[in-house]
Amino acid sequence: DIVEAALAVVTPKDLLGRRIVVTAGGTREPLDPVRYIGNRSSGKQGLAIAVGAAARGATVTLVGANLEVHAAASDDLHVVHVSTTLELEAAVTAAAAEADVVVMAAAVADYRPESVAPAKIKKDVQGDTLQLTLVKNPDILAGLAGARRDGQVIVGFAAETVDDREQLLALGRAKIARKGADYLVLNRVGWTEGFATESNSIIVVNSAGDIVSEASGTKTSVAARILDLLT
Amino acid sequence: DIVEAALAVVTPKDLLGRRIVVTAGGTREPLDPVRYIGNRSSGKQGLAIAVGAAARGATVTLVGANLEVHAAASDDLHVVHVSTTLELEAAVTAAAAEADVVVMAAAVADYRPESVAPAKIKKDVQGDTLQLTLVKNPDILAGLAGARRDGQVIVGFAAETVDDREQLLALGRAKIARKGADYLVLNRVGWTEGFATESNSIIVVNSAGDIVSEASGTKTSVAARILDLLT
Repeated sequence: DIVEAALAVVTPKDLLGRRIVVTAGGTREPLDPVRYIGNRSSGKQGLAIAVGAAARGATVTLVGANLEVHAAASDDLHVVHVSTTLELEAAVTAAAAEADVVVMAAAVADYRPESVAPAKIKKDVQGDTLQLTLVKNPDILAGLAGARRDGQVIVGFAAETVDDREQLLALGRAKIARKGADYLVLNRVGWTEGFATESNSIIVVNSAGDIVSEASGTKTSVAARILDLLT
Repeated sequence: DIVEAALAVVTPKDLLGRRIVVTAGGTREPLDPVRYIGNRSSGKQGLAIAVGAAARGATVTLVGANLEVHAAASDDLHVVHVSTTLELEAAVTAAAAEADVVVMAAAVADYRPESVAPAKIKKDVQGDTLQLTLVKNPDILAGLAGARRDGQVIVGFAAETVDDREQLLALGRAKIARKGADYLVLNRVGWTEGFATESNSIIVVNSAGDIVSEASGTKTSVAARILDLLT
């Protein structure tokens, strides 16, 4: 329509020709056919990055984990749906082989149940308590960074529940050093912040731990600031 | 608009004056501020019952647990949002005190973590495995049935992962006897069935274990068949 056409004219195509993979949403690890361990992530921030990148000329693959919001796929925006962390790892690893940039915005479950019950766990059989053993999932961000192609840019996300900016930065600097990513987007989350909201507030650090960007606002405007780092 | 007005004319007001509480969605039990144990329920079936009941003249309170779909509240449809099983129990118990019918369509977590971590559990601190102890949640359906007002009708739901109709009926008959509800709506669910889909297939048994209704189709048409039992 007219608004879209006008926006298309004014949006600079400064990511033209770049192949960008974006993960979004939160992975779910099944306990049985009806229960799972999930992450509180609507996928809105990752989706805004994917849509924003496509609007700026990039060819985008969006790997979406249980998205609560949906992207309209187009020639410039391919969508791959996944649910578990292992499925997300397989999809993003495959897509990364042909990508210039990988943005890991999805909230990935660090642990999954050691075993998945084939039928619904019945509480009358289980008794008053249930012991669950969880095992560690692969570290997808570190894996992508370790397998990085020449010139490929790897962007990670860290959602931390800390009280202040200095604690957030300290956690972020330790994390990017450990993971080997090029940029890490930090945001503070709590019981009510960051997830499933329309706005966000972030700090981006580079591999040296320096702050290279800060942004607050709608998830669309925050996405634009993150994408500015890739131009 | 015209379609709504026409539908309003042809929909019989056969639930006029009835006060109906409907729970919908799936409860989430937090492990920490970002992780939870969830149930695969979109809330669509419960929502269809709530909307259908209001259209047929009932005054409806919808207790929605993490609904992926949303109802437009109106004079005849009040919406209360909850997340955990304990929150759902408090909301449905309060609403039931003034209700003629309670329909427990929500998928309720049988267990919750014994303790909730105040900050995000860090995998570099935890190591390769994580042991979780879950404790049993209250049995809301049995509680409602036990506290039933004179003439109040209690409708439960049972989503079972069994292979055939006879197994489903046997589980359902044992469950309604145990819970003390008036009707139990049974449906078979699996990795791909029943949840988050647009259609559903159900069998309803009464407190004697007799089949009183069977329906397959859209969640709206299945809702209508369940509501027929209340007229």
